[in-house]
Amino acid sequence: MKLLEERIRLAGKVKDGDILKVDSFLNHQLDIELLDKLGEEFYRLFKDSGVNKILTVEASGIAFACMAARYFKVPVVFAKKSRSANISEDVYKSEVRSFTHGVTNTVIVSREYLSPKDRVLIIDDFLANGKALTGLTDIVRQSGAVAVGAGIVIEKAYQGGGDRLRANGLRIESLAKIVSMSDEDGIIFDSDI
Amino acid sequence: MKLLEERIRLAGKVKDGDILKVDSFLNHQLDIELLDKLGEEFYRLFKDSGVNKILTVEASGIAFACMAARYFKVPVVFAKKSRSANISEDVYKSEVRSFTHGVTNTVIVSREYLSPKDRVLIIDDFLANGKALTGLTDIVRQSGAVAVGAGIVIEKAYQGGGDRLRANGLRIESLAKIVSMSDEDGIIFDSDI
Repeated sequence: MKLLEERIRLAGKVKDGDILKVDSFLNHQLDIELLDKLGEEFYRLFKDSGVNKILTVEASGIAFACMAARYFKVPVVFAKKSRSANISEDVYKSEVRSFTHGVTNTVIVSREYLSPKDRVLIIDDFLANGKALTGLTDIVRQSGAVAVGAGIVIEKAYQGGGDRLRANGLRIESLAKIVSMSDEDGIIFDSDI
Repeated sequence: MKLLEERIRLAGKVKDGDILKVDSFLNHQLDIELLDKLGEEFYRLFKDSGVNKILTVEASGIAFACMAARYFKVPVVFAKKSRSANISEDVYKSEVRSFTHGVTNTVIVSREYLSPKDRVLIIDDFLANGKALTGLTDIVRQSGAVAVGAGIVIEKAYQGGGDRLRANGLRIESLAKIVSMSDEDGIIFDSDI
C-alpha cells in the first residue's frame, strides 16, 4: 500500500537491533486518519471471506483491529497477555515470544468468544519471525474456528516468518512488506524491486 | 447514555471483589457498533472544547480512544505501561495502581507527543478510585498541555474517584455512572434515581 510505505519511509526510524520505530503514527501515537484507510484496505482484501470476527492481541494490535472491524461490521476479540484477575479460567492459550521486548507471554482468549462457527480474520501490526501470528492461529485452531487469513500492517519479510506461515496454508496480506532495512540504505519494500 | 446502561444491565456481570465484568462487549470482545456510538457521544460532549489530541492508556482504553478520535479527526496517544525496549528515555511518567490487577505500573508517554500546544481529551474505559485518570492528568500537566476533560465509559461513582477529580476542576463525562452494584440488587445507575 503506497500511502503506508511512503509514510514509513518518511516517519519510520531504523534503530539498532533490527527495530523499526513507528511510534509517531502507528504505535504510541496513532494517526487515526491513516489507520482508518488501513482498515478500509483490509476490508477490500478480505471482504469476500465471510469474516464474522476479528482477532488481535493487546496492546498494539487493538487500534488496527477496531478500525478494520468498523468496515466489516463484526466484533473484535483481543487476546490478553498473561492471566488477568477478571478473566475466567476457561481459556484458549498459547505461548508467544516477543521479539521487541525479549519476553515470553502467555496469550489467552476466553472460550466464550471463539467457536467452530467463527470465520476469523487475524489482524496485527507487525509480522517478523511469526511468533505472535503463530500463537493467534494456534488459538483459532484450538477453538475449532476457521482462520480465513491474516491482515498485517508491516511485515519484515526478510525474517521469514510470513513465508513459513504462508507455506502452511495461511493467507497473509501485508500492507507494507519490508525486504531489507538498515541505517545506511534505508527501508526497501517489495514494491521497490 | 441509555443504550450503554441497558447493555451493561443485560450483559454485564457483577463479580466478587467489586468487579464488573463487561468482557463480552467492552473488554476482551468489543462490540464495535456500540463502541462507534460511544465515540460519537464523546464527540457530541466535547466537540466545542478545541480537542487536538486524545490520550488514553493501554490496553483497554485504546479501542474507545480510537473510535472517538475518528469523530474528532485527531491523533490518539496511548500511554504505555512499563518501559519498552523501543521507547526513548525522554518520557513523562506517572505511577498508577491498578484496582483490577492489584499491581502498580509506571505509565509513560514520550515527550515527543504532548506539548504545551495541545488540548487533550483523556479517554478511558473505567473510572473507579481515579488512580489511572490521576496518572494521565499528571502526565498532561507535566507536558504543559491543557486537559480539556475526560470521557469515561463506565464510572463506579460510589468509589468517589470521579468526584475527587471533579472537585479539582477536571470536567469528567461518564457515559454510564454506577451508584451501586451487587449480586442481589443488580446495577443501579444515577439515571435510575
